Amino acid sequence: MSISLHQASIPLFVRGLKNLAHLLEKGAAYATEKGIAPSELIEARLAPDMLTLAAQVQRTSDTAKLSGERLSGVESPKMPDEETTFPQLQERIAKTIAYLESLSVADVDAGEGRTITLNFGPMKPTFSGPDYLFGFALPNFYFHVVTAHDILRHKGVEVGKRDYLGAVA
Amino acid sequence: MSISLHQASIPLFVRGLKNLAHLLEKGAAYATEKGIAPSELIEARLAPDMLTLAAQVQRTSDTAKLSGERLSGVESPKMPDEETTFPQLQERIAKTIAYLESLSVADVDAGEGRTITLNFGPMKPTFSGPDYLFGFALPNFYFHVVTAHDILRHKGVEVGKRDYLGAVA
Repeated sequence: MSISLHQASIPLFVRGLKNLAHLLEKGAAYATEKGIAPSELIEARLAPDMLTLAAQVQRTSDTAKLSGERLSGVESPKMPDEETTFPQLQERIAKTIAYLESLSVADVDAGEGRTITLNFGPMKPTFSGPDYLFGFALPNFYFHVVTAHDILRHKGVEVGKRDYLGAVA
Repeated sequence: MSISLHQASIPLFVRGLKNLAHLLEKGAAYATEKGIAPSELIEARLAPDMLTLAAQVQRTSDTAKLSGERLSGVESPKMPDEETTFPQLQERIAKTIAYLESLSVADVDAGEGRTITLNFGPMKPTFSGPDYLFGFALPNFYFHVVTAHDILRHKGVEVGKRDYLGAVA
């Protein structure tokens, strides 16, 4: 037995994105219930030089779809960062999930033999598929999902780890 | 080619814990530099009903060592949650890394054939090793590392995603 690259990547991204959608639903409901502008949550951040909630969602989406693209070799849809409302953020998440779910297991598993090169200006690190996934893509992905959770919780929305994890049983 | 359960678990936990140690070093240096009590950071939280920084570190440690134990079948050291200083938190992280690094690749890989049962009171979900790792252990682990980062950043410590990710090239 062994684990496939697809098994260790795409379902994790899809699950995290679905849970993020659930967190945002709770955020939207909270804004309605408290009579506050949704933008107060969408533009919230944990520090003046950190990204807003909207940007955390956009980066979650980018990390997931670019990981899908780099592992599978199948181009991902371009998504300009124009979302400013909860419905728009939900639409972006749904589009990201649809792309990830369109990838074949075989294409993603072939990423094991692929060399992935990132472009950080002067630095252009290269990885094997698994090294990219485990050392870069997954930690990055969870960084943005968790920070989105933390922003909502910090703003008073009643979300917790159970919402973030989703159903485990 | 394929991915082993060890490859997808222990090195990720060790790396995350080392990066967490680095984040805490920056926190300790910040307290010294600004002349504030370290406890102001160690007891900080993002919401009144969220865990403190110290507790986030303890839960990161627990998630990593209990995952190691459940996957490998090798008992992990007990660690009462008594840390109240940066050096104590660093010691706990170091002990957790030492346990994880003591596990043999073969023992962890054998976790693929193990059934893992969690105990949530009335609910006792069971998982295969990979399902436990990908659906529960890794998202939980990153939750606490990222929230520790977010608490420090929120309190003004100059940490960022590069500190959280560690060297990628």
